[in-house]
Amino acid sequence: MPQENNNMINLSPIGYVKNDIPEDEVPRNRAEMISEIVIDDYWAKALTGIEEYSHIFVLFWMHKTGAAEVEQLIHPRGDNKLPLTGVFASRTRNRPNPVGLAVAELLKREGNKLKVKRLDAFDGTPVLDIKPYDDYDSFESVNVPDWWAKRCRKK
Amino acid sequence: MPQENNNMINLSPIGYVKNDIPEDEVPRNRAEMISEIVIDDYWAKALTGIEEYSHIFVLFWMHKTGAAEVEQLIHPRGDNKLPLTGVFASRTRNRPNPVGLAVAELLKREGNKLKVKRLDAFDGTPVLDIKPYDDYDSFESVNVPDWWAKRCRKK
Repeated sequence: MPQENNNMINLSPIGYVKNDIPEDEVPRNRAEMISEIVIDDYWAKALTGIEEYSHIFVLFWMHKTGAAEVEQLIHPRGDNKLPLTGVFASRTRNRPNPVGLAVAELLKREGNKLKVKRLDAFDGTPVLDIKPYDDYDSFESVNVPDWWAKRCRKK
Repeated sequence: MPQENNNMINLSPIGYVKNDIPEDEVPRNRAEMISEIVIDDYWAKALTGIEEYSHIFVLFWMHKTGAAEVEQLIHPRGDNKLPLTGVFASRTRNRPNPVGLAVAELLKREGNKLKVKRLDAFDGTPVLDIKPYDDYDSFESVNVPDWWAKRCRKK
C-alpha cells in the first residue's frame, strides 16, 4: 500500500504493459501501436465499467529512462535545433519522477486485460494507475511553442 | 532520486500546491478555482519554456485520501443511485496508487511559481510532475457512461 515517509512516496505496480514493438520504434509508432495492459488479478474488479469509456489515461513507471541523472534543460526530441527546454515543459522520459502519462484508446476489455491504442510505453512497463478520460480533459484550442506547432500540429 | 526496489517505486515531491479553498469545496469549485504551484527552487530551471503552453498536466500525490483501505468498487461521487463502478473507471481519490491528475490552465509563470486554474487539489498537496498538454492529448468525441453523459456532459 502507498505510504509517505520522510518525504518519500512509495507506489506499487497494479499491472504491466505488453506489446511487441522494439523500444527504439515506440516513439514513431505511437499513433498506431497496440498494447495490452494486464492488470493484476487482485485488482481486476477495479476495472468494472471501464469498457464504457472510449479513452483512458494510463499512468506508468518509465523504468528504462536510460540516464543516471536528470538534466533540467534538454533539447526536445534530442534535436539540437530545438530550443533548450525545461523537463517540465517537455514530455521527455528522463524526469525527476519518471511517471509516464498517455491518453490511450480503449479498444477492448477482457477480464483483467485491456487492449489499447496509442500507449507509448515499452513492453514490460509497470502500470501505476488507470483513469477514465472525459469531456473535461479535452481542450480544443491550446497554445503550444512555435517549434511544436510547426512540427506537430494536427492542423 | 526515484528508485525501484523489491517492486516498490519511490517518488519525491518537486513542489506543493497553494490555494485558499476549503477542502470540502474543492470538487464543486474546480472549474473556477485558482491555485499556485510552488516548485522547489532546485527544480525552477526545469520550468523553462512552460509559459508557452496554455494548458499543463499536473500530477500530484493525493495525501489526504481519507481511507485506510481501497475499495475496488465505489458509487461515483458517493451517490448510491449511480452504478457500482471500479476505481480505475472512476476519478475517486481513494485508489491503489493515489496519484492525482488534472489538466490545468496555466495563467502565469513567475520564476518557480505557476498560477493555474482548474487544479482540483487541496492546499498543501505534494506535486510529482508537470507535463505540457498538447493537441495529441485532446480527443473531442469520447464515449462515457450514460450516467456521466446525463449529469456532466458539457453540451
